[in-house]
Amino acid sequence: MKRLDEKQVFDRAALNALVDEAIFGHVAVVREGKPVVLPVGIGRDGDYLLIHGSTGSGIFREMADGRDMCVAITLLDGLVYARSAFESSMHYRSAVIMGSATVLEGQSKLDALEKLTNHMMPGRWDEVRETTKKELAATMVLSIPMDVASVKVSDGPVDEFEDDGDDRSIWAGVLPLRLVAGEPVASPLTPEGTPVSPSVVRQLLARQ
Amino acid sequence: MKRLDEKQVFDRAALNALVDEAIFGHVAVVREGKPVVLPVGIGRDGDYLLIHGSTGSGIFREMADGRDMCVAITLLDGLVYARSAFESSMHYRSAVIMGSATVLEGQSKLDALEKLTNHMMPGRWDEVRETTKKELAATMVLSIPMDVASVKVSDGPVDEFEDDGDDRSIWAGVLPLRLVAGEPVASPLTPEGTPVSPSVVRQLLARQ
Repeated sequence: MKRLDEKQVFDRAALNALVDEAIFGHVAVVREGKPVVLPVGIGRDGDYLLIHGSTGSGIFREMADGRDMCVAITLLDGLVYARSAFESSMHYRSAVIMGSATVLEGQSKLDALEKLTNHMMPGRWDEVRETTKKELAATMVLSIPMDVASVKVSDGPVDEFEDDGDDRSIWAGVLPLRLVAGEPVASPLTPEGTPVSPSVVRQLLARQ
Repeated sequence: MKRLDEKQVFDRAALNALVDEAIFGHVAVVREGKPVVLPVGIGRDGDYLLIHGSTGSGIFREMADGRDMCVAITLLDGLVYARSAFESSMHYRSAVIMGSATVLEGQSKLDALEKLTNHMMPGRWDEVRETTKKELAATMVLSIPMDVASVKVSDGPVDEFEDDGDDRSIWAGVLPLRLVAGEPVASPLTPEGTPVSPSVVRQLLARQ
């Protein structure tokens, strides 16, 4: 873990790209001395990670008190089939961010909700109706500075050497994995023939 | 979080199925009072979760001391496009397991490594060469009882009602997502024409 400064352009760019590609992350906090981790939807506002949850959620209320948090965001890119179990591994990209949260309110909260919605479903915010005051009151939005973070990328070739003595008749290599979108399924109250929204088409094209 | 007992057949079955389908999870521990979370490959031996790492890893050495751990395993199944940002959400299955680890040694360790390898790549253990003593010594295998756990499944329809007043010309529905395998890429030292291993074919067929 290290503090990212302005000189670390690559780290910052890699971190942002990873956060932007991921749909969700895992956030960990300490509750009564014990670690707790749970999946959360994510968004990004510049150098800040955004997460949101219910104001009725005990763990969100606790995260709002500024306690230490740790967020991991991981993308699985493939399986590495080596000729030994020991060298068998995964291709992945992973970010770990340490910090504490600030609760967003007012216009900042609305702006963050737009970013969170468009992070999960690019372009969706302008397609849906406005958020009501009741919905806003039921939602907590937290902002976590991404200042102390590490990015780990595992994308190398299979570990093999000319003189490793391994049986070359055993296939070794990488099986790429990616998250792919299937056929959209309209809700029961969507009238037949309603065109799929541009934000859905965008996801379909991005995840083929 | 609850303690699973023998009567909770459904919960136990759902937990096992989720662990078996997932390739990796996120483990959280407390280090010097702060939460830390990181991605780990997983396996399962009955009611025990298996994870492994390097004996040189500080965090694995700490987990070996029996401290409290929390593991989350999440599968993303789709995006739920509602007609409001508030109801927009994800389809997912998630397990959260709380417990502490025991270090496996000897035959138990070897058996667990077989399970870990075959969890990530079903059938691979019998295709690869034997694990060396040096490799075994460099690997730490931890077993965590899955006794205190919760399983959460979000797979419902879009939240919509006949009289919700929302504009029905906006498409609502679910975009399914799944992890798909691409074309296997042979390593440089795999002779041309070497058939792809059955364990690779198995993953390809399972993740189409």
